[in-house]
Amino acid sequence: MTTYESYVTQYGQVKKIDAFAYLSYLHDHPQEPRKHGKVVLVTADTPLKASRGEGKTTTTIALIDALRARGVDAAAVLRQPSMGITAAGSKGGASGGGKASLTHPELIDWGLCGEMAAIAAAQNLLVAFAEKAVDDGRLDTIAVPRVSETPSRSLRQIAVDRGKGDVPERTVLTPTCELMQIVVLSRSMEEIAQRVSEMVAGSFEGKPVVFGDFIDLWRITNILGDAVKPALTETKQGSPVYVHCGPFANVSIGIPSLVSVELACALHDVVVVEAGYGTDAGAQKWLDIAAREFGAQWPAAAVVVTRATTWRDDPKLSWRYPFHINRLERLGLAAFPLVNLWEGEDDQVGQLRQQAADLGFRTPIIGNLFRDGGDALAEQLDAFIEALEQHDDASVRGDESLDSHRGMDTVDDIKWIIRSAYGVPAGRVLLREGFEQSLGNARELCASLGKDLDDMVVVAVKSPATMTDDDSAAEQDRSVTLKKVEVHAGAGLVQVNLTSSLTTPMPKIV
Amino acid sequence: MTTYESYVTQYGQVKKIDAFAYLSYLHDHPQEPRKHGKVVLVTADTPLKASRGEGKTTTTIALIDALRARGVDAAAVLRQPSMGITAAGSKGGASGGGKASLTHPELIDWGLCGEMAAIAAAQNLLVAFAEKAVDDGRLDTIAVPRVSETPSRSLRQIAVDRGKGDVPERTVLTPTCELMQIVVLSRSMEEIAQRVSEMVAGSFEGKPVVFGDFIDLWRITNILGDAVKPALTETKQGSPVYVHCGPFANVSIGIPSLVSVELACALHDVVVVEAGYGTDAGAQKWLDIAAREFGAQWPAAAVVVTRATTWRDDPKLSWRYPFHINRLERLGLAAFPLVNLWEGEDDQVGQLRQQAADLGFRTPIIGNLFRDGGDALAEQLDAFIEALEQHDDASVRGDESLDSHRGMDTVDDIKWIIRSAYGVPAGRVLLREGFEQSLGNARELCASLGKDLDDMVVVAVKSPATMTDDDSAAEQDRSVTLKKVEVHAGAGLVQVNLTSSLTTPMPKIV
Repeated sequence: MTTYESYVTQYGQVKKIDAFAYLSYLHDHPQEPRKHGKVVLVTADTPLKASRGEGKTTTTIALIDALRARGVDAAAVLRQPSMGITAAGSKGGASGGGKASLTHPELIDWGLCGEMAAIAAAQNLLVAFAEKAVDDGRLDTIAVPRVSETPSRSLRQIAVDRGKGDVPERTVLTPTCELMQIVVLSRSMEEIAQRVSEMVAGSFEGKPVVFGDFIDLWRITNILGDAVKPALTETKQGSPVYVHCGPFANVSIGIPSLVSVELACALHDVVVVEAGYGTDAGAQKWLDIAAREFGAQWPAAAVVVTRATTWRDDPKLSWRYPFHINRLERLGLAAFPLVNLWEGEDDQVGQLRQQAADLGFRTPIIGNLFRDGGDALAEQLDAFIEALEQHDDASVRGDESLDSHRGMDTVDDIKWIIRSAYGVPAGRVLLREGFEQSLGNARELCASLGKDLDDMVVVAVKSPATMTDDDSAAEQDRSVTLKKVEVHAGAGLVQVNLTSSLTTPMPKIV
Repeated sequence: MTTYESYVTQYGQVKKIDAFAYLSYLHDHPQEPRKHGKVVLVTADTPLKASRGEGKTTTTIALIDALRARGVDAAAVLRQPSMGITAAGSKGGASGGGKASLTHPELIDWGLCGEMAAIAAAQNLLVAFAEKAVDDGRLDTIAVPRVSETPSRSLRQIAVDRGKGDVPERTVLTPTCELMQIVVLSRSMEEIAQRVSEMVAGSFEGKPVVFGDFIDLWRITNILGDAVKPALTETKQGSPVYVHCGPFANVSIGIPSLVSVELACALHDVVVVEAGYGTDAGAQKWLDIAAREFGAQWPAAAVVVTRATTWRDDPKLSWRYPFHINRLERLGLAAFPLVNLWEGEDDQVGQLRQQAADLGFRTPIIGNLFRDGGDALAEQLDAFIEALEQHDDASVRGDESLDSHRGMDTVDDIKWIIRSAYGVPAGRVLLREGFEQSLGNARELCASLGKDLDDMVVVAVKSPATMTDDDSAAEQDRSVTLKKVEVHAGAGLVQVNLTSSLTTPMPKIV
C-alpha cells in the first residue's frame, strides 16, 4: 500500500480521501513524491437562465477523458450538486451527460456520502444551540439562519414558536450557508473549529456573541467527521473525478473545497476545476476569492463553454461571451472558447469558427460532447496542451495584481469586481436605499468583534443569469445596484447583494 | 466470495448490506443455506426520565459478547440513534459504554452513513412538492410535516411564508416521521414507493390528496437508495451489530427496520433486538406492531434491564418492573430480569437476588456491564441459553392470541394495549375533550381514501417515562387519557396520543 492509499477509504461505490491528513503528511515530508498539477478552470458564458446549463460538467468530463487519451494525467474537481435541487427536478443532474458522464451519476446527484446533509445538521445544530442560549438568557437574538437541503420558497421567511414568540427567522439552502463556506475554505479540522468559534450566533444586550463563547466545538466537528473528506469517483472512461462541497457561485462562493483541488494537484499533472455558473460567477470567485485571498492556485488556463444558441441568439446579450474571454486573457489566462453543440448543430461549425476568428479568439474547440464525449475533443487540444506546457507559474499574470484586497474599502472592492468582472465602471454603481445603513451595521458588527469589515473578503451575491441591472442595455447604460451586505465573520467573508439577487438564498421548485 | 458477500459493500468503517436484495435472493432460492435465528428482545424497566437510560444498548452489546464467548452465534440489531439528540448532548450516545461498546461509536452516534439525513431530505422534499402543488392549484392545505434531525423546540409550531401567507406548519424530529416508519416496515423499494404513494399530502376542496396523485415516486426512492441498507459494525470484542432506522418507541414505532432483523436471523442463530425505551414502549411495539401486524418474528425470550435505583428507589413506581416481567411471561416469553449495576453497587447483589426471588422472577442476571462487559454475564447465562434451546417456534405463546387486530375498532384496540401493556382496564380510559372529534376526522379521512380506520395498526404515543396519567397513583386510581389520533395512511398506522405525549414530536435541547 502506498502512503496515499492509507488515506483512502472505500465508501460504497466511491472512495473518500482524508485530504486534511494526506496534505498535512506531504507538508511534513517534503521528500515524499508528489505531483504539482496545474489548475485549469472550466467556466462558461453567462447562462440565459439559471436552470439552463451550457454543459460545464459535460465539458469537464470530456476534457479530462480527452487529455488522458492523449497521455496527459488529468483529473477533474467538481462541486457536489445541491441534492434538493436535483431531486426536485429543477435542473438536470450535475454529473455530465451522455458519453461524458460519471460511472455513478446517481450517487453524485442524490446526496453522495451525506456530506451536505452533515453540514446541514451541523449548521442547524448551531441554530438550536443559539436557541438554547436564548432560553438560558445568554442571547437575545439569533443571527445564524437555519438551512434546508430541499428547496422550498416558503421557508425564506418563517416564524418559529408560532403562537408564542412568533420569532422571525429565515432558512437558506444548505450549500449557501456560512458553515459550507468554512468547510470549503479550511485546510484542517482545527481551522474549521476556529472559524466556527468566530461565527456570530446572535446578539446579547446589543453586542454580537460568537459561538466560541458558549458551545462545545467538538460537537460540530464530530458531525463533520466524514463530510470534510473529498469523494473520488470516475468517468465512464475511467478518468478520476474528485467531488467536494461548494455549489452556487451566484449566492455564495461556489468553490469546491480548496483541499480537494490541492489533493488533486498532488496526484495529477492537470487538474480541471469546474467554475460555474458563468465566468462572472464561478471564475470570478476562483480568481478573486480562492486564488487571490485563500492561497489557491492561479489557473494556468481556462476553457470557456458556451452553446451556439447562448452565444448568438440574443444580440443584446452577445457581448457577454467575448467579454468573459477577453477578461480572462487580460488576467494572463489562456482562455479557450469551447462551443458545446446540441443535436442538429454539426453544420454550424464553420460559421462558429469564423465568428471566433472575427472576435480575435484563440481557435475554438467545438464538439457535441453529450454524443461524442472526449472523442470530440482529443484532436483539437494541441494548442491547449501547448499552452499548459508553456505555462510557467512565475510568468506574468496579465494586467491585474495578485496582491490581496484585504484592507481595501469594501465598497471600493465590490466596485473593483464590478468593473473587472462585469464591465461596469464605478460611476455607474448605484446604492439602493438602505445599503448604506446595512453597510454601517456590518462595519459596526465587525468593530464589535474586534475586526475590520475591510479585511473581509468580498463575495458578490447576484442572479446567475445577469451581471448588471440590465444586461440587455447598451454598454454605456449598464449599471449595478448594491442592495445590502451580510458579514460571515467565521468564514471571513462579506457578502454584497446586487439588485437581482434573492434576499434569502432559497429557490423554489420550478 | 459467498453469495452473501456479493450483497455487502464497505462504507467507510462500517459495511452496508443490501438486505432487500439478499432476502429476495434467499426467498427465490430455497436451497441456499441460511440460518433461522431466534429473536431475543432486550427491553427495560420504564425509565424515571427520558434522558436516563437503564443501559439497554450496553446490555445488548455485553449479551452478544457473552453469548459468543460461550459459542453461540449471536448478533445484535440496534436502532440508529437520533444524531441531533446525541450531538446536542441531551443524552449520551446510544452505542453502549465502557467495555460493552462498539468499535466506532462515533459513527453510530454522529449520523452513520447519512441514512437518517436521506430520510429527512426525502420527507422534506415531499413537503416541498406539496407546496408546489399548492402553488399550482392542485392542493389547498398541506398535511405532511417537515422534519429536522436537530432538536429545536421552537420548530414545533412554525409559520412559513411569514408576512405573506403566514401558513401554520409543524416540524417533527426525523426519526418520528411517516417516511421513517415506511422504511422500517417495508420489505422492498417497491413497497416503499407504494406506501409513499398512499401518504396523504394534504387536501383539495375538502378531500384528501395522496402523493401518488402528483409526484414522481422515483425521486423519493432515489434519495433513499443507500438509506434502506442496514449498516454492520461490531463490538470491541468483535461481535456483529446491525444498525438500521427507527428510534423513539415513545412517539413512533421505535422498531429497527424489519429487514435488518430478518437479515440478521438469516446469518446468525440468536439475534438480540434492542426494544426501548421501557417494555411498555419498545417491547409493546415489537410484539403488537412488528410481530402481530407486520410479520416480524415473535421473540423466543426477553431480557428486561433495570438499574438497582430505578427498580427500588421510588416505592410508588416499583410496581412497574414486575408488571413488565409478568406481562412478558404471560405472553409466553421467557423474561429474564437483568440488573445493570453502577459503580459502587456490587455489594447489593444478594439483596437484589432476594428481591427477585420474592417476586417470583426467574433468577436475575446481575453485573456491572460498563466495567466488565460480557465477562459479567457469561457465567450467568445457563438458564437463558437453555430457554432459547428449548424454545419451539410452534409452542404455545401464552394467553394472548397472535391474530391480527386489523379490523378491531380503533378505540377498543388502544384500550386493549392500555390494559395489556400498562395495566389499566377499559373503564379507566378517559377521553379528553376533542378526542372524539379527532377520531371522527380520522375515520372520515380514511373513508375518503377508500380505507377503514379500524384496519390501521394502532401506535400509542406517550411519554417514555410514564404509562398512565399518574404512575405514582394507587393501582385502582390509575387512568389513561386519550388525547388525539393521527393517521399515517402510507405507513398503515394510526397514532393515538396519550395525555403526557408531546403534541408535536420535537424535543428541546436540555
